[in-house]
Amino acid sequence: MSTLKGACIIGQSGGPTAVINASAYGVIRTALDDENITAVYGAAHGIKGVLDDKLYDMSKEDAQELALLPYTPSSELGSCRYKMADPEKDDTDYKRILEIFKKYNVRYFFYNGGNDSMDTCNKISRYMASAGYECRVMGVPKTIDNDLFGTDHCPGFGSAARYIATSVMEVYKDAHVYDTGMVTIIEIMGRHAGWLAGSAALGCRYGAGPDLVYLPETDFSMEKFLEDVKRVYNATGKCLVAVSEGIHYADGSFVSEAKTSATDGFGHAQLGGLATILADIVKKETGAKVRGIELNLLQRCGSHLASKTDLDEAFLAGKAAVEAAVSGDTGKMVAFKRESVDGKYHCGVELLPLEKVANFEKKVPLEWINAEHNGVTEEFIEYVLPLVQGDPDRPMVDSMPRFVKLKKVLAE
Amino acid sequence: MSTLKGACIIGQSGGPTAVINASAYGVIRTALDDENITAVYGAAHGIKGVLDDKLYDMSKEDAQELALLPYTPSSELGSCRYKMADPEKDDTDYKRILEIFKKYNVRYFFYNGGNDSMDTCNKISRYMASAGYECRVMGVPKTIDNDLFGTDHCPGFGSAARYIATSVMEVYKDAHVYDTGMVTIIEIMGRHAGWLAGSAALGCRYGAGPDLVYLPETDFSMEKFLEDVKRVYNATGKCLVAVSEGIHYADGSFVSEAKTSATDGFGHAQLGGLATILADIVKKETGAKVRGIELNLLQRCGSHLASKTDLDEAFLAGKAAVEAAVSGDTGKMVAFKRESVDGKYHCGVELLPLEKVANFEKKVPLEWINAEHNGVTEEFIEYVLPLVQGDPDRPMVDSMPRFVKLKKVLAE
Repeated sequence: MSTLKGACIIGQSGGPTAVINASAYGVIRTALDDENITAVYGAAHGIKGVLDDKLYDMSKEDAQELALLPYTPSSELGSCRYKMADPEKDDTDYKRILEIFKKYNVRYFFYNGGNDSMDTCNKISRYMASAGYECRVMGVPKTIDNDLFGTDHCPGFGSAARYIATSVMEVYKDAHVYDTGMVTIIEIMGRHAGWLAGSAALGCRYGAGPDLVYLPETDFSMEKFLEDVKRVYNATGKCLVAVSEGIHYADGSFVSEAKTSATDGFGHAQLGGLATILADIVKKETGAKVRGIELNLLQRCGSHLASKTDLDEAFLAGKAAVEAAVSGDTGKMVAFKRESVDGKYHCGVELLPLEKVANFEKKVPLEWINAEHNGVTEEFIEYVLPLVQGDPDRPMVDSMPRFVKLKKVLAE
Repeated sequence: MSTLKGACIIGQSGGPTAVINASAYGVIRTALDDENITAVYGAAHGIKGVLDDKLYDMSKEDAQELALLPYTPSSELGSCRYKMADPEKDDTDYKRILEIFKKYNVRYFFYNGGNDSMDTCNKISRYMASAGYECRVMGVPKTIDNDLFGTDHCPGFGSAARYIATSVMEVYKDAHVYDTGMVTIIEIMGRHAGWLAGSAALGCRYGAGPDLVYLPETDFSMEKFLEDVKRVYNATGKCLVAVSEGIHYADGSFVSEAKTSATDGFGHAQLGGLATILADIVKKETGAKVRGIELNLLQRCGSHLASKTDLDEAFLAGKAAVEAAVSGDTGKMVAFKRESVDGKYHCGVELLPLEKVANFEKKVPLEWINAEHNGVTEEFIEYVLPLVQGDPDRPMVDSMPRFVKLKKVLAE
């Protein structure tokens, strides 16, 4: 491939993770150090920043300060949830993007996100090719949901899994402190894939895990759920349940949105999330003391429990994207391959065509869910465990997190 | 004072904290090493374990394993919420306690808990004195709520404050990721005292704190609250709010229990906690996207964010209780004095008569709450900051917490 000189843009998109900024730093640091890349711009709020001509000149940042970026949760450049039209149907946005790319001589575009972002990335790549504008477009994966197709796992998942597993272990201790009965229901993110809810089960290996785990990969039955809870509760006086927010009945309707007679005899929509709804039903059915806990945003921004493995791999994904693009690759997403080196987990990198990953979802294999559909298998645990390892050396001030402070100087 | 030889009992009571086991370890380790103390028993589920003759012989535990106790959250011996009658009115329980004390020759009793536990402690102390049974009774403070009277602060508070402040800082980052409007409401424990909700404001010093903080020390006005939120939201497009679960109207009724027309036109009780109720009201009043987050049990069992200062002081409280009792003290609670040594924070220990601390609540001084009643002052932050310092060297296995595994051998 020929050498391509020009500027690059890095954009972040979709929901935040604890380590998405490590990927951004992987791109930015590598690009700043590469002689083929003449300028490094961060798009404010993803593709919207390109459309709005709002780009930050990353060369204006202090290098030492920039090095704190990986340890700052959420998307520091700003994110968006902006679904692009098909360029064949409506090319308005694409024309504008091309205009901006030409204005800044952008020849490298890196997009850091999940499923929808890979779709955006793919469309931009196609459009630039059809417009005859040479620009290398690379997807850098991220999602706590771990549902990107074609990659062994996604940056962001390991840290969220570690946060969830640790928190559930701690709640286990709390929920067992009294000698009175108690049912605890913990709601975990994951609308369509149960990777995060399943990770709650890690603590089972260490004697402090949930009794029951429900994933969205199988249909949920309220009757079976209540049977399960009653069985555990009657035997032990306690029951700790982890549920994915995405559990649904056989007809596909989400349990979180269902109006059951047990929740409200008047059929009114209920406030509160799934944990509250289930807690209320269990309370009425069993008379037990029940507590619903929603891990909420905490699980996706909990950088204080980031896994070093995840953080390092997130950086690697960004770095690999730049190196591949400079070497001539385009229209690809960086993906991870699980390898074994001397019997130990090792993360290899490969490149996948964007059209093969965009818009597909990777779910938990059914054989990793137990026969009762209320737990995960040892294979699942073995899959997750290497991803949650290690403590990054987090910068702190007064024992509080020290987040990066970017100048965010607009490009001229 | 004369030397007193005999066994000791340590009991834990009330809600768990991240470091209550460090206090238990302070008692147990010091007592095991003291030649005047002939046996060390842990009461299963606090005073209930004494009444039920269910005592664990702590000498049967492996010393190395026992040393993991401080790093395990919640009350490892088990807790209870058991309110004792006044011995003058009904001495049934006290007679039983005396019987057990005589059976095991218990001459030292250490009770590790909050307000109610100090009350229990005080009553037992009085009863033993009136019965002419020599037993030295000491209270070891704990509570995340920090509302114990007479002590500068309480073991457990610093770790919960650190958990809350860190989590709020991370949520701040998450809540500011999109360029669309967003109001986030975080509900924090503290029914009558706002120490924990106020601690959410620590992040303000580091550029990632809440815009508004509401404590239960002042009356809550829904109108003023909505005005505050709208002002911040209209100016910045975001608003991050921290509220104590105990906020109440001028008539004393809790906002969490009020049925306002804004929450449900039909007057039905609402599911979900205060954060959900407020989120719903703000959503209806402003049309903004609003998210309610309840920190729930996580904030009191989050030992992975325990403050080393808090952990060390919790141990110190237990140790000081044993040393004081062996020296002849009884009917006292260990309390902390804030001292300055070479201009640095230092925690001194003193003993307070139990009757002076039991049943009083220490609230946040009104002069530490801002004039608008929607934030705390710098004095408040300066008070909290030394208590959240340092990372304990937590034991881990596979990057997951390694909790203590006690044998819990029943005393013979």
